[in-house]
Amino acid sequence: MQRCLELAQRAAGKTTSNPLVGSVVVKNGKIIGEGFHPEAGQPHAEVFALRDAGENAQGATVYVNLEPCNHYGRTPPCSEALIKAKVAKVVTGMVDPDPRVAGGGIEKLKKAGIEVLVGVEEQACRRVNEAFIHRITKKQPFGILKYAMTLDGKIAATGGHSAWVTGKSSRNLVHQLRSTCDAVIIGGNTVRKDNPNLTTHNVTEHNPLRVVMSRGLDLPRECNLWHTDIAPTLIFTENNSNAFLQQELIDKGVEIITVAALTPKIVMEYLYQKELSKVLWECGGTLAAKAIADGTIQKVMAFIAPKIIGGTSAASPVGNLNLTKMTDALQLKEIEVKAIASDILIEGYLSIDNR
Amino acid sequence: MQRCLELAQRAAGKTTSNPLVGSVVVKNGKIIGEGFHPEAGQPHAEVFALRDAGENAQGATVYVNLEPCNHYGRTPPCSEALIKAKVAKVVTGMVDPDPRVAGGGIEKLKKAGIEVLVGVEEQACRRVNEAFIHRITKKQPFGILKYAMTLDGKIAATGGHSAWVTGKSSRNLVHQLRSTCDAVIIGGNTVRKDNPNLTTHNVTEHNPLRVVMSRGLDLPRECNLWHTDIAPTLIFTENNSNAFLQQELIDKGVEIITVAALTPKIVMEYLYQKELSKVLWECGGTLAAKAIADGTIQKVMAFIAPKIIGGTSAASPVGNLNLTKMTDALQLKEIEVKAIASDILIEGYLSIDNR
Repeated sequence: MQRCLELAQRAAGKTTSNPLVGSVVVKNGKIIGEGFHPEAGQPHAEVFALRDAGENAQGATVYVNLEPCNHYGRTPPCSEALIKAKVAKVVTGMVDPDPRVAGGGIEKLKKAGIEVLVGVEEQACRRVNEAFIHRITKKQPFGILKYAMTLDGKIAATGGHSAWVTGKSSRNLVHQLRSTCDAVIIGGNTVRKDNPNLTTHNVTEHNPLRVVMSRGLDLPRECNLWHTDIAPTLIFTENNSNAFLQQELIDKGVEIITVAALTPKIVMEYLYQKELSKVLWECGGTLAAKAIADGTIQKVMAFIAPKIIGGTSAASPVGNLNLTKMTDALQLKEIEVKAIASDILIEGYLSIDNR
Repeated sequence: MQRCLELAQRAAGKTTSNPLVGSVVVKNGKIIGEGFHPEAGQPHAEVFALRDAGENAQGATVYVNLEPCNHYGRTPPCSEALIKAKVAKVVTGMVDPDPRVAGGGIEKLKKAGIEVLVGVEEQACRRVNEAFIHRITKKQPFGILKYAMTLDGKIAATGGHSAWVTGKSSRNLVHQLRSTCDAVIIGGNTVRKDNPNLTTHNVTEHNPLRVVMSRGLDLPRECNLWHTDIAPTLIFTENNSNAFLQQELIDKGVEIITVAALTPKIVMEYLYQKELSKVLWECGGTLAAKAIADGTIQKVMAFIAPKIIGGTSAASPVGNLNLTKMTDALQLKEIEVKAIASDILIEGYLSIDNR
């Protein structure tokens, strides 16, 4: 199953709105076939693994981190492929939360006389597809708030200087993280102050959709995000904002969406409709607080640099949440702490009802 | 040597201005004597260990984390005791930085024909006596800044509510930490807002000296720190501050020291003269910044609770240091990360020139 997850994650960032799935065919204790789902529209993992195994698949055990599908989507159902290949046993990590599958694949296999084992390494399997599961069950993309702060809780020095809080290894990890995401969101303030690229810096060929939220569209005419040949850029703004700049940016290939009142929820709803699953919020504290309050953040990734910058007015990672008692603080669950060179990454979940 | 350090730390908080020292006597691969230095004025660790071993000490190896002393202080020199006991070998962690010893003990032992090995587990030995070493070499107490903050860098909610940021295990660890310290320092603001006890809450019988820095002495007439039957309290204030309250507090057994201009440096100089070694700063951000700027903080212990409180104006652990570039941030060295129940403790050193 661990091998399935390894294979699955090779396509991280490329399968939306499909899940990450890897599959291994085992016979007489030996792996005779492997495969993973490379992107939406392409065959599923089991199909690649069965192809790899060839006729040997007969009587074999197939491992797959997610329940084999049972419906005709862009590809025929995997349950049928497994039955046709005459495999003896299917071991799967979890039931597919997609209502079109939801146990149906398992039922079909069982009815065809195939032994089915469900729930192997389930937690790890759920973790790998947390964005997919959240998307399916909550009908909104999975939001990750990522920030980098000093050990005294500042994301910038007094005055705003912030390059760099964390070290190179942490920044590389963020590039990798972006490559697994479907979109990255920042606010206008971050565009003005940092002029970021929000790309994966060639960690992989996959760059996420770069999303800017700017109510007034008071943004520079020249900045890295307007180079849409590198990666697509989408701006959310409010009606009647800066029409001149709007046209100029559209001419540069930037997509612009205007709404009456811009909120994180509206943006995430749009991205959901666009079939995106995993969205990284790399914004400053003001927008981060709004995104949390809007319920669009499920996971927090805090990179902490072991340094002290000080500053009573220096920016901190989360703005006003209108919580006045420490006992009202939002508790993170399933905390993980990782050393990233000399930095420390603390991860946790704001809501785990979906997992 | 590890056993020596275990023994040494049994007296943590009680030996100032002496170091923490443990000693083990080994013969034929067996421990035949153990001892540690319990408090200033009492015999040193080696003496207790030799007593424990009795006549068997002859021909044995004595382990001790710090070089045996060679001078007549409140007790006779350990070097003589070791020679008298006719031990064959002395293994020590580090040379004593005290100029009255500084290699003299080792020399004396060697001249008496005893084999001496220096520098075993030296880093761990230095760590255990970091406060003592700093005190001796820098002629100021060793300052530790301890704070508890949320994962978004706040030590209180907007409005000041802060009970509690971290969980019970972290708070217990702070009580233990206090029991190893000679003094704890806070500012007037913390007295007014939190009304703390600053005791060890019976973790051990040793409570540190409780120090309050308050220029104007605008403090409540009733608060936990004025109960000097539990632990001594010392207030630093400026000349001509609140004479009425001064007398009232003196009557309650609080010691008051008035100075012309109150700074962390002045306080630490006074505590140095008082022979204190290890001082814990448990103050808010404003005083913490002043203490750092004054060079009175050597180590930072940040307890991080995995929760988000938000708040643009919520207090953060370190106030203004007048650092405007992120590249000017004070880098911590020798970082250690520990899980304390669901909280995370990040420790590091601001200056390690002394170690």
